[in-house]
Parts: sequence; structure tokens; C-alpha cells
Amino acid sequence: MDGIIYIGNKGVMNYVLAVITQINNENTNTNEIRLKARGRAISKAVDVEEMLKNKFMPELKLKEVIFGTEEVENNEGRTVNVSTIEIVLSKYGESI
Amino acid sequence: MDGIIYIGNKGVMNYVLAVITQINNENTNTNEIRLKARGRAISKAVDVEEMLKNKFMPELKLKEVIFGTEEVENNEGRTVNVSTIEIVLSKYGESI
Repeated sequence: MDGIIYIGNKGVMNYVLAVITQINNENTNTNEIRLKARGRAISKAVDVEEMLKNKFMPELKLKEVIFGTEEVENNEGRTVNVSTIEIVLSKYGESI
Repeated sequence: MDGIIYIGNKGVMNYVLAVITQINNENTNTNEIRLKARGRAISKAVDVEEMLKNKFMPELKLKEVIFGTEEVENNEGRTVNVSTIEIVLSKYGESI
């Protein structure tokens, strides 16, 4: 779990606070955060990144953006493809 | 307009076809496509990129992903921030 934040149905600020808490936790020494989302939550993952960049942690660097596809079973038991995103943020290094 | 595709309310396949059409148009010689979306359409922009990569144009390279924020006026006349994405795809070069 550590360093990975799954974006789901909560409000944007919940995830922003989760990033700030993990980055500032001296016990875990977390230097890198991975925001993971799929489907409609992808937009929210970008909201979290933008809130951090523009307001709360402008010093965080955007290191990498990874797109993917996962197969999930829908309510009718059929397999459908869902897009995924992984946004990698780091205390150190250069932004892409 | 050329080389830029704005992702809006249409179905994913409309935008996939728009990319294929522009890339294959010999008259315009388009080597690079920019998928632009904001707000909830961001997820759909990733769907378009994934459909192209996995099914229709696996030879396209993912060159760049740019996140941003725009101020837009909502129905009540108030200014709100909306996240944006720009996904740059190219015929040539290396994927990020």
C-alpha cells in the first residue's frame, strides 16, 4: 500500500490529504507517490495532481504518466475493458 | 485545428476514427495528434489512446502527457477550476 493511493469515490481533497500525509510521514520516508485510478476516476486523479501542483505541494515533481487497460466484469457478468492511469509524483528529480 | 482533436460528448469510436483519418490523410501530412480534453472527458481521452494502442494503431507512439487547469464559468456564473489533459501521439520517435 505504501506510496500507492487508489483514487475512488471519495472527494478530491481526501486524496490530496492522503498524499500530503504520506509524503510528510517521517517514519515511512516516502519520496514517491503513485496515484492509481481507472474508468471515470481517471479525471479525479488528474484533479488531485493539479490541486497538489497548484496549491498544496508545488514542489512535487510529475515523474511519469502510465496508461493501461484492465479487464473487469460488469454487472451482467460480461468482461469489459477499462482504461487505467498511474500518475507518479516525487519529492526529487525533474518533472517530465 | 489540424492535428488537434477535442474530446467531448461523442462516443469513443468517433474520436478513434478521427485520429485514424487525420493520420492517414496524405494531403495534410499529419504526423502528430494532440488529444485534448477537460473535466470528465479526460477519462474518454485515455480510452481513445488505449483503443488506438491496443487495437487500431499500435504503431503510434505516446510522446507526451500534459496536465493543466482552466477556469470556466459554471451555470450559476461562478468561476470554477477544471483539470485538462493533452495526450500527444506521433507516428515517429520513441514512446515515453
